[in-house]
Amino acid sequence: MNNIRLDNFLRGVLEEDINTGDLTTESIVLPQAQAVGRFIVKEEGVIAGLDVMQRVFELLDRDVSLVPFVCEGQYVSAMTTIAEIRGPARALLTGERTALNLLQRLSGIATQTKRYVKAVEGYKAAIVDTRKTTPGLRMLEKYAVKVGGGVNHRFGLYDAVMIKDNHIAVAGGIIPAVHQVRCSLGHTVKIEVEADNLEQTKEAIAAEADIILLDNMDIETLNKGVGLIGGKAIVEASGGITLETVAAIAQTGVDVISVGALTHSVKALDISLEMRVG
Amino acid sequence: MNNIRLDNFLRGVLEEDINTGDLTTESIVLPQAQAVGRFIVKEEGVIAGLDVMQRVFELLDRDVSLVPFVCEGQYVSAMTTIAEIRGPARALLTGERTALNLLQRLSGIATQTKRYVKAVEGYKAAIVDTRKTTPGLRMLEKYAVKVGGGVNHRFGLYDAVMIKDNHIAVAGGIIPAVHQVRCSLGHTVKIEVEADNLEQTKEAIAAEADIILLDNMDIETLNKGVGLIGGKAIVEASGGITLETVAAIAQTGVDVISVGALTHSVKALDISLEMRVG
Amino acid sequence: MNNIRLDNFLRGVLEEDINTGDLTTESIVLPQAQAVGRFIVKEEGVIAGLDVMQRVFELLDRDVSLVPFVCEGQYVSAMTTIAEIRGPARALLTGERTALNLLQRLSGIATQTKRYVKAVEGYKAAIVDTRKTTPGLRMLEKYAVKVGGGVNHRFGLYDAVMIKDNHIAVAGGIIPAVHQVRCSLGHTVKIEVEADNLEQTKEAIAAEADIILLDNMDIETLNKGVGLIGGKAIVEASGGITLETVAAIAQTGVDVISVGALTHSVKALDISLEMRVG
Amino acid sequence: MNNIRLDNFLRGVLEEDINTGDLTTESIVLPQAQAVGRFIVKEEGVIAGLDVMQRVFELLDRDVSLVPFVCEGQYVSAMTTIAEIRGPARALLTGERTALNLLQRLSGIATQTKRYVKAVEGYKAAIVDTRKTTPGLRMLEKYAVKVGGGVNHRFGLYDAVMIKDNHIAVAGGIIPAVHQVRCSLGHTVKIEVEADNLEQTKEAIAAEADIILLDNMDIETLNKGVGLIGGKAIVEASGGITLETVAAIAQTGVDVISVGALTHSVKALDISLEMRVG
Amino acid sequence: MNNIRLDNFLRGVLEEDINTGDLTTESIVLPQAQAVGRFIVKEEGVIAGLDVMQRVFELLDRDVSLVPFVCEGQYVSAMTTIAEIRGPARALLTGERTALNLLQRLSGIATQTKRYVKAVEGYKAAIVDTRKTTPGLRMLEKYAVKVGGGVNHRFGLYDAVMIKDNHIAVAGGIIPAVHQVRCSLGHTVKIEVEADNLEQTKEAIAAEADIILLDNMDIETLNKGVGLIGGKAIVEASGGITLETVAAIAQTGVDVISVGALTHSVKALDISLEMRVG
Amino acid sequence: MNNIRLDNFLRGVLEEDINTGDLTTESIVLPQAQAVGRFIVKEEGVIAGLDVMQRVFELLDRDVSLVPFVCEGQYVSAMTTIAEIRGPARALLTGERTALNLLQRLSGIATQTKRYVKAVEGYKAAIVDTRKTTPGLRMLEKYAVKVGGGVNHRFGLYDAVMIKDNHIAVAGGIIPAVHQVRCSLGHTVKIEVEADNLEQTKEAIAAEADIILLDNMDIETLNKGVGLIGGKAIVEASGGITLETVAAIAQTGVDVISVGALTHSVKALDISLEMRVG
Repeated sequence: MNNIRLDNFLRGVLEEDINTGDLTTESIVLPQAQAVGRFIVKEEGVIAGLDVMQRVFELLDRDVSLVPFVCEGQYVSAMTTIAEIRGPARALLTGERTALNLLQRLSGIATQTKRYVKAVEGYKAAIVDTRKTTPGLRMLEKYAVKVGGGVNHRFGLYDAVMIKDNHIAVAGGIIPAVHQVRCSLGHTVKIEVEADNLEQTKEAIAAEADIILLDNMDIETLNKGVGLIGGKAIVEASGGITLETVAAIAQTGVDVISVGALTHSVKALDISLEMRVG
Repeated sequence: MNNIRLDNFLRGVLEEDINTGDLTTESIVLPQAQAVGRFIVKEEGVIAGLDVMQRVFELLDRDVSLVPFVCEGQYVSAMTTIAEIRGPARALLTGERTALNLLQRLSGIATQTKRYVKAVEGYKAAIVDTRKTTPGLRMLEKYAVKVGGGVNHRFGLYDAVMIKDNHIAVAGGIIPAVHQVRCSLGHTVKIEVEADNLEQTKEAIAAEADIILLDNMDIETLNKGVGLIGGKAIVEASGGITLETVAAIAQTGVDVISVGALTHSVKALDISLEMRVG
Repeated sequence: MNNIRLDNFLRGVLEEDINTGDLTTESIVLPQAQAVGRFIVKEEGVIAGLDVMQRVFELLDRDVSLVPFVCEGQYVSAMTTIAEIRGPARALLTGERTALNLLQRLSGIATQTKRYVKAVEGYKAAIVDTRKTTPGLRMLEKYAVKVGGGVNHRFGLYDAVMIKDNHIAVAGGIIPAVHQVRCSLGHTVKIEVEADNLEQTKEAIAAEADIILLDNMDIETLNKGVGLIGGKAIVEASGGITLETVAAIAQTGVDVISVGALTHSVKALDISLEMRVG
Repeated sequence: MNNIRLDNFLRGVLEEDINTGDLTTESIVLPQAQAVGRFIVKEEGVIAGLDVMQRVFELLDRDVSLVPFVCEGQYVSAMTTIAEIRGPARALLTGERTALNLLQRLSGIATQTKRYVKAVEGYKAAIVDTRKTTPGLRMLEKYAVKVGGGVNHRFGLYDAVMIKDNHIAVAGGIIPAVHQVRCSLGHTVKIEVEADNLEQTKEAIAAEADIILLDNMDIETLNKGVGLIGGKAIVEASGGITLETVAAIAQTGVDVISVGALTHSVKALDISLEMRVG
Repeated sequence: MNNIRLDNFLRGVLEEDINTGDLTTESIVLPQAQAVGRFIVKEEGVIAGLDVMQRVFELLDRDVSLVPFVCEGQYVSAMTTIAEIRGPARALLTGERTALNLLQRLSGIATQTKRYVKAVEGYKAAIVDTRKTTPGLRMLEKYAVKVGGGVNHRFGLYDAVMIKDNHIAVAGGIIPAVHQVRCSLGHTVKIEVEADNLEQTKEAIAAEADIILLDNMDIETLNKGVGLIGGKAIVEASGGITLETVAAIAQTGVDVISVGALTHSVKALDISLEMRVG
Repeated sequence: MNNIRLDNFLRGVLEEDINTGDLTTESIVLPQAQAVGRFIVKEEGVIAGLDVMQRVFELLDRDVSLVPFVCEGQYVSAMTTIAEIRGPARALLTGERTALNLLQRLSGIATQTKRYVKAVEGYKAAIVDTRKTTPGLRMLEKYAVKVGGGVNHRFGLYDAVMIKDNHIAVAGGIIPAVHQVRCSLGHTVKIEVEADNLEQTKEAIAAEADIILLDNMDIETLNKGVGLIGGKAIVEASGGITLETVAAIAQTGVDVISVGALTHSVKALDISLEMRVG
C-alpha cells in the first residue's frame, strides 16, 4: 500500500463529506470536548481496514488515538468490540461515517473473499480478484482481498497483458497477438490469453502464453483444458463463479480462480461506533 | 450533477486503470483501427449511467460516439441491447472496464432503489438514501438513487443538520441541541433530530425540529411516533430496513424511509460490451 | 470550517506568492535566524482570522508559534496589539503578506457585518450574507460573516433552492416551479422563492415556499409583504441594502436581511506586523 | 495572462459554487432549454474581465456564446448593456453568479485604478499595484489594474527583490543587504530598497539600488528624497495614498506610486444579467 | 502512453514556464498575429516526441497545427527539417522552449538507445532501460527508449519484483525471499533476483526466479552465469555498461542488458525552431 | 526554494515510482524492521540535493533520520561517504531510487557548473543557466546551478523580458519592441534584447535595454560588441558555449555567460546507497 496515495485519497473522501464544514458538530460541540468510542461488529466476518480507518481520524485531528482489539484479517464473531478510539469529540463525530464506510466495505470484501478461500480449501487453486473494482478504490479493495486470504490479479491495464477476444480479432489470431505483444513489451511482463474453448486453449499453448484464462467453460471442458495445458502455463478459470460452484472448479486442477463478485457486489459488514463524551 | 466534477472524477478513475498505458491494446491495436460495440444487459433492471459511460469514452477519445437505445432510468429485461458505441478501437478497449464498472454499479443501485420504491407504492413514503455511499462516489450514487425513483437525503455534513445521540449527550438534551444549532446556522438549513424512543420524539417535537428520524423502532412504536408528531415535522424512519419490512413501515404513515442498503451493499447489474472490429 | 480544505487553500495561496522562492529573504536571512513580531490593528474593528493566519505560518514552518492577545470576534480599538508571533525569521518574513492579506480581509468583513448587526439591534431580523463572495474564498468569507455576528445564507447552488425570475419563467409560474423542485428534491432541502411584487408574494405563499425573498421592495410594499405572509414562511429582504436603510427594513418585521456588500465590497481592516530580529 | 492557469482557477471556482449540482436549475430547467441574457452595468465604470466571464460559461457548456458590445477597458456610463449571451439556459443560470462575481470585482478594480490614473494625469508618475491582492486572485487582479491604466509591481516574492526594515536589520544595514542580494541573485533581477527617511535614502543610493521606495514620507521629505536620488534610481512612493493625496505626491516627481487600496479594498462595480428564455 | 496523464503533465510543465504570463510575447505580439515555424535538427539522431510536442502547442491554442516531415523514430541527418508548425504567433512563441526541451530530451534518449541497440546487432540481447529516469518523466523517457529500439524494464516498484541484496539480507537468503514474494503476490507478477556472484546465481536458479540479474560481473563470470542458468530463467546483465563494453556482454548470450545511462545521463539532441511571422 | 512546492513535487515523484505499492519490499520486509545506509560517491564532484533527498525519505516515513557528512556544495573526491541514513527498512528501500535519482542529477548539474565557473576564474563573467531545464524540475535544477557556483537567469517567461528575433520581427525592430514592452510592463522588470550582430547591438543600446545578449558571435565580434556597449547595459554571451571555449569568451569582458548544457545535457554523478539491516 502506498501511504502517500492513501492520504491523498482519504483527504478527498473527507472533503466529499465535509465540504465547507460539519454543520451539526461545529454548532454543538466545543473544540476542546473529548470523547471515547468503541467499534462494534454486528455480524461475524473478517476485519479489514483498521489502519485506513485510523488514518481517517488522524487526518482530521492528530490527537485522535485508536487502539485495535483484534488483528487486521481476524475473523470475529458478532458483537465483538474491535477497537477503541479516543480524542477530540469533533473529529470523532465528523469522521465517523467516512471511517465506517471504508471499514465496512473493506471488511465486507475480506469476509466474502475468506468464504471463497475456505470453499476451495484442500485444492491448490488460489482465489483472485479482477478489475471489477469500485472506480477510485482499487488499491484499497485489492488490499482487502489479500486480507481475506485472496490473491491479486493485475492492478490495471499497465502491469500485465490480458489478450481478449477483441485483441485476438484485431491481431488475426492468438499466435500473432502474443507475438506482437512479446515484440513490443519487456521481459518483466506476463502475458495472459483468454480462451473461450479448447481450440483457443491449444493456440494459447502454442503461443507460449504465461497464463491461460479458461473463460466461462463448464467443468468438463475445464478438465480437458487443464489436461491440454499440462503445466505449460498457469491456468486461470473465470466466469460467473459463485460460492456454490467454486469448489467444483477448483477440483479441475486450475491454478487460480478469478471472482468478480469479490469486489463488484460487496455487502458491507455491519459495524457501528458507539461513542460517549469523554 | 456537476459536469466539471464528473470529468475530474472520471479522469482520476481512468488514470487508476491505465497508469502509464494499456500494455495489451497499445501493443496489438493500431491507433487508426475502428470498432463497434453493443452494451447488453444480462439481467433485468433499471439502467443508470449512460451519460457517465459516454463521458468515459469521450475523455479517452473525442471521436467515440455512443447511441443509447433505452432511456436513462428505463426498466429493461434481460438480454436487452441498451446502447451502441463506435469509434477508435483503442479507446473502446481501454475504456471498457472503467465504463462498465460505473454503469453496472449505478444500474445496480437504481435497480435496487426501484424495488424499494415499488414495495411502498400506494403509500406516501419516499425511499431515500443515506451517507452510507462508497467513498468518492457519493454524487454518482445519489444520482443513481434518483434515477431509480428514490429521493436524496442530505449530501454530506454540510447541507443539513442531523442531531444524533452523541450530539444530544454533549448538548445536554434535544432542546438545547436544537437551540444551539438554530442560533448558529442560517434560515436555509433544515434540522433533523434522531429519536430512539417516544420520549425523545416528544422532545424533538417540542424543539420544533424540521424532521424527526424515528430510528430502529418497531412498527407499533413507529405508529405511536407518527401519531405524536401529527404533521408538526417531517417523519423519517430508518434502521435495518429490508425489502421485506419496508411496506409495513410505509403503512405507519411516515413521510420518508431511509435505506442504507441502497448504496452500502450494491449488487452490480450484469452488463457486457460485445465488440467487433469496425 | 473544514481544516483539510483550509490547508489546501492556504498551500495554493502561499504558492501564488512564493512560486520558486522568496528572493529577498532567502538571500539575506539565514535559515536559523529567529524573529518576533507583533500584529497591530491600526483602526478599530472586529478581528477575524487569527487561526487562519496562524495556519499560514505553520505551513511554512512548524516552529512558528502565535499567541493571540484578543479573542476571535472581539471588537478592538485602534493601535491594539492583537497577537505576538515567534519563530524562524524566514517563515515570518515570507508569510507576512499572505497572512495579513487574509486577516485584514476577514476582519474587514467581520467589522462591516458587525455594523449591520448593530444597526438592526432590537429587531428580530438577522443579517445574512449572499453568494456575492470572492471566488475561491467563500468558506472563509462566510466564516467571517459569522464572526461578525451575521448568519450564513446558502453556501452555493447545491445546499438550498432559490427560485428566481428566470426559473419561474421557464417553469411557467411560481407554483409549478416549486412543485417541480419538490418532486425532484429531498425532504432536507429548503425552498426559497424570490418575489418582486405582492402578486408573486401571494403565489409563493400559495406554493408553500419555505422562505420568501422580497426583492428590491420599498418599505411600504415590504410591510404589506410581511403582512401577507403572516408567518407562513420565513421572510427575507434584499436588494441594495445599506447601513442607512437597514434599520427601516428591519422594522418591517422581516426575518432576515441579506446584504451583498458584506462580501462583494470589502474594506480591509488596516493591520500591520512589526517584527524584530529575535 | 496564462490561460491554462485561468481555466484551472475557474474550474475550482465553479466547483466551489456548484459542488454536487445546481439544485434549482437542474430541477426546473430541461437540458435542451435555451436562453438569452444581457449584461447591464448599473453604474459608470471601466469594464474588465469580459474574456474571463466568457470562459466561465464555456467551461460549463461549449455551446454558450457571448458577444461583447464594449471593449475591455472601456469606460461606460450607467445602464450600458455591455454584452449579450446566448446558449443553454442551464449553463447561463448556473454560471451567472460566478461570472458576475468576477466581472464586478475586476471592473471595480479597473475603475478605481482609472480614477487614480486620472488624478495624476500630466505627471510622469505611474500608478502601480502591490501584493495586497485577494489570496488566489493575484493574476486576475493585477490584470484588472492594467486594464484600468495602471502598471504592475512585482507579482510575488519570486520575481523582484524588495528589501524592507527587517531584512535591513538582519543584514546590518542597507549596503550589506543589497550586497548580499547582488551576490546571490542573477542579472535579471531588480533590487528595490524601502527607505523610511532621508538617511536610508542616501544609503540606498550608495548601495546602487535599482528602485528606492520612499515609504510613508510627507510631501516635503518626498521632495528632498527625489532630489537626493536625482535619477540614479527609479523612485517609488507608497503608504496610505488616497485619491485626495495622490496628485500632490505625483507632483514631487516620483516615478511610480504604489496604491494598496487598488486591490485590498475593492468596491465591486454593479452589473447584472437580465435573462429571458430563448 | 496514457494521454490523460500526458495532458496533465504538460499543463504542469507549461505552468512552470508561464506562471502568470509570458511578459515578452503578451506585450509585443497581438492575439491575432499568425506565424509559421520549422523545426530543424542540428545534428544526426533519432526523432522522438513529435506527438508530445504537438500536444504542448495544442494545449496553448487549439488553432496550432503541426505537420511532421519525418516519422517518429526515424534516424535523420544533421540539418533536416523535421516538422512545420502554423498558428497563432503567441502560442508558438510561448510554447517554443517547453516543446523543444521535451523533443530534444526524448530524441536524445532515443538516439542513445539506438546506438546501444546497433552495438548489439546480431546478438539476441535486448537493450532495456532502468528506473534511473528523471523524476516525473518516467512514462515519457521509457517511451523514448522504445522509440529508439530499446525495451522497457519494469516501470516502478509496483509492476514487477526485483529482489536485491538488502531484501535478501532481511529475508535470510534468496530462496526464502523468493518464497515470501510468491506467497504474497499473484500469478501475474514476475520475480527477478539480483545475483552478484555465481553462488547467488545458483540460489536464484534453485528458487525458480523468472529473471536473474547478473550484476556487475566480468565477462568470464557472466559466461559462467549464463551457462549455469541454461535457459531456466531470463538472464539480465547490468552494471556500468557502456557503448564500448555492451557488445562483449551481449556475446555472453544474456537475454537483456539494462543500461542506466540511457536515461540518467542524457545528451539533448540539438533541435531549433525557426519562426517567421505568418 | 519553496518547500511547499518541493513537498508537492516529491509526493508526485514518489507516486510515479510506487503507484499502488512496492511489491518487493512490502512482501519481504516487516514494517518494524530497521536499517542503516551510507551514501557513497563513486566519482569526484560537487554534492547538491542533500536536503531534497532527506525530504524524500521523510515523506515516506517520519522516523527516517539522515546525517550528512559533507556540506551542500562541497567538492568531494571519489569514494567519499557523504551521508548516513537510519530508519524503517521499508522507507529506505522504497525511497532509495527516487532519492538517488534526484541527488545524482542535482550533483551532476552542480559539478558541471563548477567546472565552468572554474574555467572563467579571474574574469568577471558569471556562469548562468538558461530555460533549457528538464520540464518539471526547473526550481531544483536552477538551485543546483547556484550550489555549483553559478547564477540564475530568469526562471521563466514571467519574471523578465527576453526579446528575440521573432519578437523583433513582429514589432518592426528592436526600438519599437523595447518601447512596447516598457509601456506595458512595470518598473521591476528587466528587459533583455538578443542581438545577433553589431547592428542589432547598436539598436539595443539605443533602445536602452537593461541587458544585451550577444548571441552566437565569434570572439572578435564579441569584443566589438562589448566595446560598443561600454557599460551602458549588462552584456550576456551565449550560444554553443563549451568548457573549451568559455574562457576565451570570458576574456572579452562580458558580464555573464549563459550555458544551456548546464541543464539540458546532464551527466548524473555516480552515487550509491549501501544499506544493511539495522
